[in-house]
Amino acid sequence: MGYTDLDQLAINTIRLLAVDATAKANSGHPGAPMGMAPVSHVLFNKFMKFNPKNPDWANRDRFVLSNGHGCMLQYALLHLFGYAVSLDDIKAFRQLDSITPGHPEAHDTPGIEVTTGPLGQGFANAVGLAIAQAHSGGVFNKPGYNLFDNYTYVYFGDGCAMEGIASEAASTAGHLKLGNLIGIYDDNHISIDGDTKCAFTEDVSKRFEAYGWHVVWVKDGDRDLEGIEAAIKEAQSVKDKPTMIRLTTTIGFGSKLQGTGGVHGNPLKADDIEGVKQLFGFDPSQSFVVPQKVYDLYHKHADEGAAQEQEWNQLLQKYASEFPQEHSDLTRRLSGKLPEGWEKSLPVYKPSDPAIASRKLSEAVLEKIYSVIPELLSGSADLTGSNNTRWKAAVDFQPPEYGIGEWSGRYLRYGVREHAMAAIMNGLAAYGTVIPASGTFLNFVSYAAGAVRLSALSRVRVIHVATHDSIGLGEDGPTHQPIETLAHFRALPNCMVWRPADGNETSAAYYSALTAKHTPSILALTRQNLPQLEHSSIEAALKGAYPVLEAPNATVTIISTGSEVSICLDAATYLQKNHGVVARVVSVPCFEVFDAQDKEYKLKVLPDGIPVLSVEVCSTMGWERYSHEQFGLNRFGASGPYKEVYAKFEFTPEGVSKRALATIDFYKGVPVRSPINRAFQQIL
Amino acid sequence: MGYTDLDQLAINTIRLLAVDATAKANSGHPGAPMGMAPVSHVLFNKFMKFNPKNPDWANRDRFVLSNGHGCMLQYALLHLFGYAVSLDDIKAFRQLDSITPGHPEAHDTPGIEVTTGPLGQGFANAVGLAIAQAHSGGVFNKPGYNLFDNYTYVYFGDGCAMEGIASEAASTAGHLKLGNLIGIYDDNHISIDGDTKCAFTEDVSKRFEAYGWHVVWVKDGDRDLEGIEAAIKEAQSVKDKPTMIRLTTTIGFGSKLQGTGGVHGNPLKADDIEGVKQLFGFDPSQSFVVPQKVYDLYHKHADEGAAQEQEWNQLLQKYASEFPQEHSDLTRRLSGKLPEGWEKSLPVYKPSDPAIASRKLSEAVLEKIYSVIPELLSGSADLTGSNNTRWKAAVDFQPPEYGIGEWSGRYLRYGVREHAMAAIMNGLAAYGTVIPASGTFLNFVSYAAGAVRLSALSRVRVIHVATHDSIGLGEDGPTHQPIETLAHFRALPNCMVWRPADGNETSAAYYSALTAKHTPSILALTRQNLPQLEHSSIEAALKGAYPVLEAPNATVTIISTGSEVSICLDAATYLQKNHGVVARVVSVPCFEVFDAQDKEYKLKVLPDGIPVLSVEVCSTMGWERYSHEQFGLNRFGASGPYKEVYAKFEFTPEGVSKRALATIDFYKGVPVRSPINRAFQQIL
Repeated sequence: MGYTDLDQLAINTIRLLAVDATAKANSGHPGAPMGMAPVSHVLFNKFMKFNPKNPDWANRDRFVLSNGHGCMLQYALLHLFGYAVSLDDIKAFRQLDSITPGHPEAHDTPGIEVTTGPLGQGFANAVGLAIAQAHSGGVFNKPGYNLFDNYTYVYFGDGCAMEGIASEAASTAGHLKLGNLIGIYDDNHISIDGDTKCAFTEDVSKRFEAYGWHVVWVKDGDRDLEGIEAAIKEAQSVKDKPTMIRLTTTIGFGSKLQGTGGVHGNPLKADDIEGVKQLFGFDPSQSFVVPQKVYDLYHKHADEGAAQEQEWNQLLQKYASEFPQEHSDLTRRLSGKLPEGWEKSLPVYKPSDPAIASRKLSEAVLEKIYSVIPELLSGSADLTGSNNTRWKAAVDFQPPEYGIGEWSGRYLRYGVREHAMAAIMNGLAAYGTVIPASGTFLNFVSYAAGAVRLSALSRVRVIHVATHDSIGLGEDGPTHQPIETLAHFRALPNCMVWRPADGNETSAAYYSALTAKHTPSILALTRQNLPQLEHSSIEAALKGAYPVLEAPNATVTIISTGSEVSICLDAATYLQKNHGVVARVVSVPCFEVFDAQDKEYKLKVLPDGIPVLSVEVCSTMGWERYSHEQFGLNRFGASGPYKEVYAKFEFTPEGVSKRALATIDFYKGVPVRSPINRAFQQIL
Repeated sequence: MGYTDLDQLAINTIRLLAVDATAKANSGHPGAPMGMAPVSHVLFNKFMKFNPKNPDWANRDRFVLSNGHGCMLQYALLHLFGYAVSLDDIKAFRQLDSITPGHPEAHDTPGIEVTTGPLGQGFANAVGLAIAQAHSGGVFNKPGYNLFDNYTYVYFGDGCAMEGIASEAASTAGHLKLGNLIGIYDDNHISIDGDTKCAFTEDVSKRFEAYGWHVVWVKDGDRDLEGIEAAIKEAQSVKDKPTMIRLTTTIGFGSKLQGTGGVHGNPLKADDIEGVKQLFGFDPSQSFVVPQKVYDLYHKHADEGAAQEQEWNQLLQKYASEFPQEHSDLTRRLSGKLPEGWEKSLPVYKPSDPAIASRKLSEAVLEKIYSVIPELLSGSADLTGSNNTRWKAAVDFQPPEYGIGEWSGRYLRYGVREHAMAAIMNGLAAYGTVIPASGTFLNFVSYAAGAVRLSALSRVRVIHVATHDSIGLGEDGPTHQPIETLAHFRALPNCMVWRPADGNETSAAYYSALTAKHTPSILALTRQNLPQLEHSSIEAALKGAYPVLEAPNATVTIISTGSEVSICLDAATYLQKNHGVVARVVSVPCFEVFDAQDKEYKLKVLPDGIPVLSVEVCSTMGWERYSHEQFGLNRFGASGPYKEVYAKFEFTPEGVSKRALATIDFYKGVPVRSPINRAFQQIL
């Protein structure tokens, strides 16, 4: 309370940095920063707890700009409060290789928690950050030791509010009673197509109330700083519900085009900029001006944050002596390292072990590792019994008052909300104390494509347990049988797609996924049983590809993944017996990992001289990378018992053999070069 | 009103067909059919207007089972009312090549309007069907001629209610005041993980009210047939809002496991089946029993429907004489044929025409064809000015009372709801009187992946105008720059991905998309300008691939798409000038169309003897199909002015030339076989 001219000066400084930076770049979104500068001033300077000198402080308040196109707002704040974002960085807004790209990217810019811009994602990330806070508090807080009590603040606009992913996440947050989550809805009535009355006339406040949120409305978000402050205070005080502050603002406040779509995604024109600067009492002839007293004001708050971190560190030291075990667990987690020797818990299989579906093999891994990796949080989008993602002793993550779980619970019931689930996992991973894994059918990871893409781009360790990975799911039919999905995610940079063929490969997939600190993983797992392979091992599988049947005098290499590997092995037997043909068989559980091996190893796996046939019951797209000929399914599947479906499409030893013979025949007398040999290096 | 034992018998007959069919298949979902049989009896027998002998009658009421896993309910109804679904078809439930697959598929089964199962999709399809009805009414209805006044009914369960796509669609439907849309929410408190209290505790009724829906609650959906009837009547009478009937039911009604997750997705056990049959007064020793009086009851209603169609046909004949032009437009639309000679309106370009962005070229096509193809409905997910999907004279589709559009309007403001938009388009296409097209950024077609997949599977003609198709969008940066997207949708069966290189290719893309009656198309279009090519033509582009630079003495073929084709042409000049190397250049605007050409043509495009280098600023995945070496971007892009971004990744004449030289060098002395030659045919 008691706002002065200095507050207004600070607010206008933020606005003008956004105006100048978008003008200089001749690109970007000035409208949202100009409208949201007042609330940002109040929130960052009066409420938020952070230390710009250490953006990684574990108990900092989290801030997410879900309307990421307004990122000049965030860059301006980071600069003004003293994060390692300089005025030159601001001037390089949207320029090549700057740390101020067109939308906020977590890995590039100090102080950016999550990568946003694709609408709705940040909102769901914030729900993940809030879950991680509640869980970390549940695990580590002790009487007198509120180690984790930070708030998560998320800005979102009409665009985010329209996106289904945000609806899913909001419903989840309401169910979970995430009291430390505060959403601030930039109710400016403008989206790119103009007035929201053309497409978005619902009652957003009522909708959030329906989800179980507390809702406050600040009707003059442009000027009513006291009202904003009171609303945030109220939000903080409501502990059993997330709060949505509906903040009615004027987009592009101060511009001639304020309140219109014209100021959303285009820089202001020169005369408009001049007018805005005059209106705000700034010199129109100058750009990128920050009055020293604005720096002083904000640096004072930053210093308070540094002191708060100091206190927290002292508390942590006391905690260390009273709760040494928890303390060592916590510090280890924050370092990103897994417990020493955890990998010894991974199951290992012999060929004589029974055939087991890889979704069950995955469950066996979870049963073995959950107790040694306490930061692992599992879950499912309402397919727990099908994904096998829940270890028997698991406790659900739920508000204790429901009587069906605890804050410290490690199993998340995401509901039928695949897109939000994936984005919530991105938020969980970004918090720093947990590693999220969760399940759905492989086919429905596609519902989450937008969020999986951001996992990869923002380099977070999340694990998608994607079961029912092919026509092998049988009766559910083509609506549930993925064809294009493996190709899709294999084409996504920095995403590991594992399709293990047996128990050892499944253990390898988990080893890889859990140790890949900056890469998400998708584990494609079967519904149907798979035999344990003769020559598989965790070590071999961790090369991404390896021979499961070696034969020096082979005339063809058959390369395959997952459930088809054992069919290919049977095909090799069939070829030998019926045609006197010798085949090698290679399992390639993970393209991305195999690609990272050295050429010498790769050439051993796919040697020159004999042709390669690939076999996978999905689109052949991408398999040309490793093979001369491809056997796959470039059509939709069929509903029926899975063995019949496999037979219909000839994925049988006979069907594979027929194509292996055709391949050998086709390359007879032709010098065959391994596909590993390339004319030049790819840009990676 | 006045329900008797016969009604109960009919209801129980439906229930037991579902019980028997799932038991025989040893697979499927009996719970929803058993719970939803009462409302289905009332809805189908008292309200719905349809003629089983002609499932294509244009003004039939539409029914969508969004909770498609409960499809035995729908198959039972289709059978009982006399659609071409026999008792043997019911007995073949979930068996290979039956017309009763695991989830309903529109193209396989008479009476199935849209393909459902993936949750939330059917709900959004229903919104599309209702929009199409309102629009068709707006266009064709005249005083005394209510040609289009059908209702659209959609069942949805808790799973659908949790999905973001359904939230998006519900918000859209509320905004659009779709009075003829009636949603029936199976409020059975059970999803796969058990009681919805574990993940879904929001107030669904209040949420739908917030969207602008009318809401009615029937508290005993198991027994209160009068209440159900009254609720549907009320819903029909509310003309300015869609209605959601919250119907509280008991999943698996009658089973020992009723009201639990145990009856959701597993057939009933033998003793349970016996008990249910006894409870319902059926002979436990018999299966698939339909009492004749149930057939009689339902066939009577079907006959009434046939008579209603007859009346409608007579009305249509009268309409023909009074409104001959509208009548001929309507009958043509219903035949699925485009107007004679429409293609003459497609723009044609000469090399001397100016460079234009393909999103603008797309706009030019729309400006030319909108008046000759009146069934074309355009729209955008709040990116109208960026997607250029709106012709200047377009009128918005809006409830007239908003004052910003008309029911007959042909431009849809979808809001920022990509997933619902794509699924609504599937519903629009399924209605039969319109062809939907709509825009978003290519990167955000991924948000809609679940619905695009169903476009392809259900074989509908929808057009995705996907602009900003690469790093060429520049400053918005990696969050908005697709890398994996083209590979993803190229791997999807029955989906045409076009990436035109200039004006003629853009016209070809539209020609192909509009004439592909059973295939969706994605048009990947640039933000940046593209020159008109020397040797392009609509005819050549319609082959999917063709040489844009032919040279008999070439030592390399460079194959490319869209914005990179002109760079490759410059590279060819550069190679000639600086290295004396002759290159051919091939444009391949559409993989799927090229794949469908005969081998002779394909070998002319990609001849034996010289190596092929592919060039596209996206993932190289899939390009191996047509090329020996690939130049692409297997990493995320960068934020900056687009020419600088292109230069950073070496997508310049020099960068392409360097790789062409490496390719030539690598294949020197090696006999080169065209990638068109394959050892065997793919399964398609």
